[in-house]
Amino acid sequence: MLVIGDEILSGRTQDRNVAALAKWLNVQGIRLSEVRIVADDIEAIAEAANAVRAKSDYLFTTGGIGPTHDDITVDAIAHALGVDVVIHPDARAMLEGYYESRGGLTEARLRMARVPDGAELIVNKMSGAPGIRHGNIFIMAGIPGIAAQMMESLTGELEGGAPVLSETIGCWTAESEVADILGAVEAKHEACQIGSYPFFREGRVGANFVVRSTASDLICKCLAELIETLEEAGMDVVKGGI
Amino acid sequence: MLVIGDEILSGRTQDRNVAALAKWLNVQGIRLSEVRIVADDIEAIAEAANAVRAKSDYLFTTGGIGPTHDDITVDAIAHALGVDVVIHPDARAMLEGYYESRGGLTEARLRMARVPDGAELIVNKMSGAPGIRHGNIFIMAGIPGIAAQMMESLTGELEGGAPVLSETIGCWTAESEVADILGAVEAKHEACQIGSYPFFREGRVGANFVVRSTASDLICKCLAELIETLEEAGMDVVKGGI
Repeated sequence: MLVIGDEILSGRTQDRNVAALAKWLNVQGIRLSEVRIVADDIEAIAEAANAVRAKSDYLFTTGGIGPTHDDITVDAIAHALGVDVVIHPDARAMLEGYYESRGGLTEARLRMARVPDGAELIVNKMSGAPGIRHGNIFIMAGIPGIAAQMMESLTGELEGGAPVLSETIGCWTAESEVADILGAVEAKHEACQIGSYPFFREGRVGANFVVRSTASDLICKCLAELIETLEEAGMDVVKGGI
Repeated sequence: MLVIGDEILSGRTQDRNVAALAKWLNVQGIRLSEVRIVADDIEAIAEAANAVRAKSDYLFTTGGIGPTHDDITVDAIAHALGVDVVIHPDARAMLEGYYESRGGLTEARLRMARVPDGAELIVNKMSGAPGIRHGNIFIMAGIPGIAAQMMESLTGELEGGAPVLSETIGCWTAESEVADILGAVEAKHEACQIGSYPFFREGRVGANFVVRSTASDLICKCLAELIETLEEAGMDVVKGGI
């Protein structure tokens, strides 16, 4: 995934699309393997796009597809692919319809109909301007509500594997108290990963432990052993996490 | 910056360190140029670390420095640097002090004293386990409160340029209405960038426009022209942004 935009790198805007895309991909049986957050710079975006798509089945981008001068994602992806930027006739028609009662389709608004040559559109019910699909590249909006709509319209369209399932438990303990247990249980359950997520809350230290696998029966076995071992060590285990 | 952790890539945890580091770096006069979010995988972390530090003055990492089996940032950075992992005597002493009244320094807890050979420590007043500095690489905790403390203790330590300053204004308008104005004004003020950040709020579309530069007088001039041009086009400008 590429998150595109100076506003993220300046700290002005808190990104919300990484977590949203990650969760949506989990349901599609696709694992998010890497994210790069890049500036509004054509060369930087194109370089990152080519690097990430070379090692991934899909590439998703968010941000930089609006009507203003700093919206250059389409140009950058076209540059990365070595194709021209063209006006997509269906996108143009969508925008004409959307802006008919909103002052008409200006030159700036027509920017949002530009796509890398050969692209299809991703429907955006919210604001007229569509997302863009070019092969295994998906170009989506930066505004979280619109990006979420675009994901929604792609649901079931992508070829995924088995979704990663997970179960969470928590303990009011420092994770360092139980680090050996976690490592030992994970080592005995090869198809499962155990993640440990410590926190400070209500003035106390605690940690949640997440068992992940694509097989629910293996999660159950691993989880049962983890709970048993933690309880033998005198821990109170909170099922579902804290 | 590298954000390290499966919990971010699974969508389980919403990252907060990118925005926090970005804002803190702005004050130090350092610009965050790229972020990569990578999995708990030694090769992936090491490869990303080497790629990012090759083109940056500094590299910051968050996540993966706790006591559990999935905390492998130190190993990965040592691997990237081609150095050994060693126990830092001062880190060991800090942890001994911290855990004296908390059950003692176990083998798992001692993991948090491991550093790439040649490293210094970054003080962590909050939980005993220090961050790590190795040349221009800064290894920090994933828990936002602790990462923020580590940034705090680095304040003024890094060589930066002039901080990037910014001024924000907002309009209750679709950004596509004013896209031409933004582009034209930016083109006339070379040392300034204008970012456009649209939103939907209270059932209306609006946008904030941020003028950035390292020179406050140039921001003032650019901002004055932008406001004047927007007002000439019939817009109500909200100073400070919406």
